[in-house]
Amino acid sequence: MKVTIAQINTTNGDIAGNVSKILAGIEKAKADSSDIVVFPEVCIHGYTSQDWFQDRDIIEHALEPLNTIIPATVGITAIVGTIRPNTEKDGRRLYNCAAIISNGELLGFIDKTLLPEYDVFDDPRYFEPNEKPNHLFEIDGKKIGVVVCEDFWNDKTFWKERLYDVDPAEEAIQQHPDVLISINASPYNKGKIKLRCDMVAHRAKASQTPIVFVNLIGGNDGIIFDGASLIANQEGDIILQAPAFEEFIESVELDVGKPDSRGITGGEIGAIHDALVLGIKDYARKNRFSKAVLGLSGGVDSALVATLACEALGAENVLCVMMPSPFSSEGSIKDSEELVKNLGCDSRIEPISGAFETLLGQLKFTKPKKGGENLAAENMQSRLRGVILMAISNAEGRLLLSTGNKSELAVGYCTLYGDTNGGLAVLGDVLKTEVWEVCRYINQQAGKEIIPVKIIDKAPSAELAPNQFDADSLPPYPLMDKILQAYFEQKLSPEEIIELGNDRDLTYHVLNKVEHPANEFKRQQLPPTIIISKNAIGVGRRRPITHKYRRTQKL
Amino acid sequence: MKVTIAQINTTNGDIAGNVSKILAGIEKAKADSSDIVVFPEVCIHGYTSQDWFQDRDIIEHALEPLNTIIPATVGITAIVGTIRPNTEKDGRRLYNCAAIISNGELLGFIDKTLLPEYDVFDDPRYFEPNEKPNHLFEIDGKKIGVVVCEDFWNDKTFWKERLYDVDPAEEAIQQHPDVLISINASPYNKGKIKLRCDMVAHRAKASQTPIVFVNLIGGNDGIIFDGASLIANQEGDIILQAPAFEEFIESVELDVGKPDSRGITGGEIGAIHDALVLGIKDYARKNRFSKAVLGLSGGVDSALVATLACEALGAENVLCVMMPSPFSSEGSIKDSEELVKNLGCDSRIEPISGAFETLLGQLKFTKPKKGGENLAAENMQSRLRGVILMAISNAEGRLLLSTGNKSELAVGYCTLYGDTNGGLAVLGDVLKTEVWEVCRYINQQAGKEIIPVKIIDKAPSAELAPNQFDADSLPPYPLMDKILQAYFEQKLSPEEIIELGNDRDLTYHVLNKVEHPANEFKRQQLPPTIIISKNAIGVGRRRPITHKYRRTQKL
Repeated sequence: MKVTIAQINTTNGDIAGNVSKILAGIEKAKADSSDIVVFPEVCIHGYTSQDWFQDRDIIEHALEPLNTIIPATVGITAIVGTIRPNTEKDGRRLYNCAAIISNGELLGFIDKTLLPEYDVFDDPRYFEPNEKPNHLFEIDGKKIGVVVCEDFWNDKTFWKERLYDVDPAEEAIQQHPDVLISINASPYNKGKIKLRCDMVAHRAKASQTPIVFVNLIGGNDGIIFDGASLIANQEGDIILQAPAFEEFIESVELDVGKPDSRGITGGEIGAIHDALVLGIKDYARKNRFSKAVLGLSGGVDSALVATLACEALGAENVLCVMMPSPFSSEGSIKDSEELVKNLGCDSRIEPISGAFETLLGQLKFTKPKKGGENLAAENMQSRLRGVILMAISNAEGRLLLSTGNKSELAVGYCTLYGDTNGGLAVLGDVLKTEVWEVCRYINQQAGKEIIPVKIIDKAPSAELAPNQFDADSLPPYPLMDKILQAYFEQKLSPEEIIELGNDRDLTYHVLNKVEHPANEFKRQQLPPTIIISKNAIGVGRRRPITHKYRRTQKL
Repeated sequence: MKVTIAQINTTNGDIAGNVSKILAGIEKAKADSSDIVVFPEVCIHGYTSQDWFQDRDIIEHALEPLNTIIPATVGITAIVGTIRPNTEKDGRRLYNCAAIISNGELLGFIDKTLLPEYDVFDDPRYFEPNEKPNHLFEIDGKKIGVVVCEDFWNDKTFWKERLYDVDPAEEAIQQHPDVLISINASPYNKGKIKLRCDMVAHRAKASQTPIVFVNLIGGNDGIIFDGASLIANQEGDIILQAPAFEEFIESVELDVGKPDSRGITGGEIGAIHDALVLGIKDYARKNRFSKAVLGLSGGVDSALVATLACEALGAENVLCVMMPSPFSSEGSIKDSEELVKNLGCDSRIEPISGAFETLLGQLKFTKPKKGGENLAAENMQSRLRGVILMAISNAEGRLLLSTGNKSELAVGYCTLYGDTNGGLAVLGDVLKTEVWEVCRYINQQAGKEIIPVKIIDKAPSAELAPNQFDADSLPPYPLMDKILQAYFEQKLSPEEIIELGNDRDLTYHVLNKVEHPANEFKRQQLPPTIIISKNAIGVGRRRPITHKYRRTQKL
């Protein structure tokens, strides 16, 4: 049996465009003389359509796009992730399903059973679960098992803890399919590509069943699907490994495929880099921006965003604005100019001093001093930069990229309506220590200094007061990031974080900052964040602003 | 049997404070010689705690607060909404339950079966459903039925469409309880108070069972629980009706109570008014703000917010800032000053002209002209006002209240990082036509002109360009609001909205604006919105920014 992975990049609601990609995938598979071509989950409408799935028009017309796809399947079988209306009176109005289409005929649907409701997922908001499991169909005497996403992800021999006590993929396997097909919309986060390989290989080997695992690729607001689809043979060898972060259509004979590891390159820092570039590229492209603007401070965060933006959009489309204040160091402009020269992008200088002095005088504020004495005047500088950047964004139709990193945003070391302004928070899920690593990776890959090393190595500073350094207000980033990583990504409790070797006082100090309502208030007004971790700031982390949970309070 | 409604105002995570309120409720009930005292859903931790329910510390220590409550119940029975850990290996880590505590002893828990996942609700994200229904317990020979919130809300003889096909309340009723108790965290929206009365009366009469329906009260970010708890006797008469939007503890004898309608006053506009005042008050109080600031433009939206803020926080704690630009009309300051005098609050004038001229010159922008020719320069004025307001907010520790109404925010007629700035979007769910109605209600209740009628009657204008009026860019508000109301609150499709008598072109024009990615992008960065409708902008409406769904596109 020859199977084709069709790892396509869909756009929410671009039904005509998505269907075109499906038709092209079918044609490619036919040209490869494939037996089955497999597409990702909900790929006609876009998996991340959210409350569009509650729209009466969308529900009523959900099946119509299949009319275009069905006739194209003459001579082949296509498995297409889509939605179908619930025709019963009660319950959610849709099912999340795989359409089984073969030789010009719609054979039926296999619905999703397990509906994830964690992190960025809200499946039960839209979908009824499959109540009568039917995960198998037959074509030309071959038994084909099909499961949708989460239905594959609950193998009790693989996971220590499970969210559900049933395993639809196991139920399918017990009926001895010739191949098990899993269609997915599984977003990237650190470690996920390897995790999927391990999970698929484990199940294939344990069940002695070939497994075809197809994943979506593409950025949708901050959610980045990495693709990295794969096929394992019944020995558990990966015989087709699609590259991550790009579209890919390729076929393999299940019985004769040889081990393949093309998709695994660059290590985790490389994957983070690629996710960020794809995130910028797709957000811009799908929202019809060709040009971007950002504020270049002389620090490492904005230097990295500028570099990633040039990769994603082309240097000729990126404008870096330097906005010195009376407290900017000489190096800030000089280092920024060196970076701009390396990148070949546009730049301009727009000092904020004029408007700043005017407002300071009018409001009778004194100038910021060392030690955070006039915080309102410190913030005002950041907000005036925000005004200038938005003015340029509005006037020139440029996407404003915000540059704050996750460490800062986590502890509220940022100015709302100032440096947080933007259409996309490029580094909002990237810890400061990871920012440094991605910068070094870029220079290393280029074999030369793209991002000047003095920018990477300089002591972080907001430059909103004389001789101000982050270290005056914050713990050293390497110590803080260990705590943040354990808290966000491993979801450990404070005592568990301390057990890992982190300082007790520092741990409580950092977590109390993270969880303070004043900082949650800022985080709730951020632009979408490109997600690279299991618990990003934003859509996957839902907290009230108003609360009195305190880590030092006995519960 | 004598039953006490304990309609309390809880704060997320203020476990000590919430337990104190529960203990006070028990004492009051004992003083009334009551048999049973009933508290709302998840009232120890706060129903709106969101991902705090995934916190390992919270889960592990979830039952501890009961140790303080149990001994206080000697001589009485208390039904307390809380959370309890799932001790099985798989599944979500908590149950949402009612603790049944009687005479100093914990009798057990009754778990919630139906877990809402729509609008602002995300129950399946945190809770396992009750798989083995047990909704009854006996005390002193009386059979008491207990259901948690949603388990009461699925009566097939009352609702036309249902989300679930089981009805736990009906299952409890079939065991013939002497009373059915329903504990709730049911947020306010228009019509909901009457809906609950009808629903409770209907079920009580149909089943000939007395029903005790207790609801939470209080603002939590934008979600406003209105209370309005009630008790119906077995004839379906409401014999105890708690007032809306305030705490309330009172008892009634089920067999001898007389019809009561104290809770139903003021009509729907009065309820909206009360919801907005409570929303401001609780957001400020629970986040320790005593003072507020807002920009007073001379228009009706900011006039209403100023008035509501004075009611909520006291006029002495409210500062109105007037920030004229070269395009402000003479009336703007004069009318604002009249309002400030009526309210007795503080005010100051901070023109934006100085900073505006500086930046215009620096960026080589020309001044805005009639007709939206220099949109970037128009927006810059709004953003400079935002800078000034945030500077005052930061310097004086004042909560910034934003003033945009739902009609504007829906169609994107607002400046991000400008007039949208704030800790709370007071009118973010109030249509422009409702803004006018609430203003008139306030004057009518006061028996005099609090909000000058000329502010209410003037033609809406953003005053960001010469002689600019909303009507230059937007359809008349009364026409637009009819479409917005049908779209948001009734969730009708465009064709259904047209069938109601709305103009076809206007309907598509308005909906295409609402659904445009550029406007969703703005709405995703708003502060929390006080919710008064079934489909508010914000936490209950989840849409991607990036999408190509178009109303005029054939699906």
